[in-house]
Amino acid sequence: MSMLPRKVEIHEEGPREGFQIEPDTYPLAERAALVEALAASGLTQIQVASFVSPKRVPQMADADQLFATIRKRTGTRYTALWLSEAGYQRARAVPQVDLAGTLYFYASDTFSRQNNGRGAAQMAQEQRQWVQRYREAALPIEAAYLMTAFGCNLEGEISEARLAEALRGIAALLRDEAVVLPKLYLADTVGWANPQAVRRRVDLVRLLLPGVRVGLHLHDTRGLGMANAFAALEMGVDLFDASVAGLGGCPFCGHAHGSAAGNVCTEDLVFLCHELGIDTGIDLEALLEAARLAERIIGRRLDGKLMHAGTLAAWRTR
Amino acid sequence: MSMLPRKVEIHEEGPREGFQIEPDTYPLAERAALVEALAASGLTQIQVASFVSPKRVPQMADADQLFATIRKRTGTRYTALWLSEAGYQRARAVPQVDLAGTLYFYASDTFSRQNNGRGAAQMAQEQRQWVQRYREAALPIEAAYLMTAFGCNLEGEISEARLAEALRGIAALLRDEAVVLPKLYLADTVGWANPQAVRRRVDLVRLLLPGVRVGLHLHDTRGLGMANAFAALEMGVDLFDASVAGLGGCPFCGHAHGSAAGNVCTEDLVFLCHELGIDTGIDLEALLEAARLAERIIGRRLDGKLMHAGTLAAWRTR
Repeated sequence: MSMLPRKVEIHEEGPREGFQIEPDTYPLAERAALVEALAASGLTQIQVASFVSPKRVPQMADADQLFATIRKRTGTRYTALWLSEAGYQRARAVPQVDLAGTLYFYASDTFSRQNNGRGAAQMAQEQRQWVQRYREAALPIEAAYLMTAFGCNLEGEISEARLAEALRGIAALLRDEAVVLPKLYLADTVGWANPQAVRRRVDLVRLLLPGVRVGLHLHDTRGLGMANAFAALEMGVDLFDASVAGLGGCPFCGHAHGSAAGNVCTEDLVFLCHELGIDTGIDLEALLEAARLAERIIGRRLDGKLMHAGTLAAWRTR
Repeated sequence: MSMLPRKVEIHEEGPREGFQIEPDTYPLAERAALVEALAASGLTQIQVASFVSPKRVPQMADADQLFATIRKRTGTRYTALWLSEAGYQRARAVPQVDLAGTLYFYASDTFSRQNNGRGAAQMAQEQRQWVQRYREAALPIEAAYLMTAFGCNLEGEISEARLAEALRGIAALLRDEAVVLPKLYLADTVGWANPQAVRRRVDLVRLLLPGVRVGLHLHDTRGLGMANAFAALEMGVDLFDASVAGLGGCPFCGHAHGSAAGNVCTEDLVFLCHELGIDTGIDLEALLEAARLAERIIGRRLDGKLMHAGTLAAWRTR
């Protein structure tokens, strides 16, 4: 049953998702240096910042300057997140942003209401307008995200039936709007996934959206991130989001018992792939340097494991 | 190919392996309270302390007093580690120790020399004396450990051929000494395992030691601990060592880049099992309380993930 892919594509989310959730803001020069260090490792896509409300997310208020500061490397795309028309227009005004047409869907209605002020059905409906906007701008639609695809702390477990319903809604939209969607990510937004659920839900996407490449946006909130990634790899999933050093956790954001862990850690995931003989195109030692830079910038011990232990390469070549 | 077990047995190693590796010593009363909290969660076996040289390991110098302090719970075994005749005699003199006859083998010759002052072959030979000692004391042999079964930082990768050789050596010893070995643990002593290696090496044990129950002693040194555990569960492995809160890491022990992660985290592993529908006999919420107690005792943020995020039970029953 193992169908490990030969090559895996890993997109870096740390600069956006990591720094966005931190309670502090960090100097622009340091964040730019981190993005450059990440690119130097060979990562082909890095989400640099979000264009969202500076009032709600002051950490990202300088997104345009950050993009303007980074020395871009050929072979790496520097993407941004936006969720509103205003954010999209801000991103378009920054020439350094590598625009990627992305659609967002929600499996949890309550989570959608809390994050967007409107329910999952309305959000899905609004994605049709995004299709039009992207079409008008001749911006290809690259990916769709299905958020809270496993469960959420507001609604609890998202059943497979509910997930299937959301996927059928996406399929209908794609058909109606004549969109060929290259990639769909199942996002385990708040850490509800387990390896079995990953397998079953990846199967469901393949069944209901045949031809669409499945990606996973995993969090390590409850310690299962890497097991979930492995379960997906064994199904041939070859597309992952991850955060350098495991950034994206929330040290002080009101969980019952202190901080919660962040995204699946990029360099640990790359290490898993390489140990399994899967190509990532990434220079792991260079990526570890970026992880250690992230730790110096944040100023506390981060969750990444490999960055503290080192790879096996040095020992193997002794 | 998934052959998930119905029930998994998890042995707690944190009080011994965790506190042994910490550079500080901690009050006896606090360590006793932690052992009691762990037992209260339903863990059936807890390694409380080691009887080793108080000069080399001062953290364990009070092992006898610790055993004498703990209020034991019916249904839990309170075990100890010893590696020398002197340590064994000290352990035997403490009536509260639940003695377990255990044999230790090494796949890495250099690691064995560094830890024991003699090579793997000599260590294997000495296990025959341990068989005799245990026999004289009418102490059943419960388990054997094969240390550094995946690789080690001194010798590099341990090949499957070398592992097979070590396993054949164990099989010969068992035959010569007429020992029926119930359990053999592959120990990933310094974090070299990956999920594929776990599967292949568990297969090797089953091939070369048929009838012996395979256990895994995993470390999360490079972030793959839970993926390795999942890979083993899918092969029907139903026996694991783990450490509460991920204790067993070494925050200041001279790794190149700061601290290294410890054993696979008990409560995260229990969570994985429960999410997969596997019974552990453990009250996860009670175990989380023990993990949080460990964090208060150690006085820094520990690696366990679930302890900081909480289980899904509360959200599911809303």
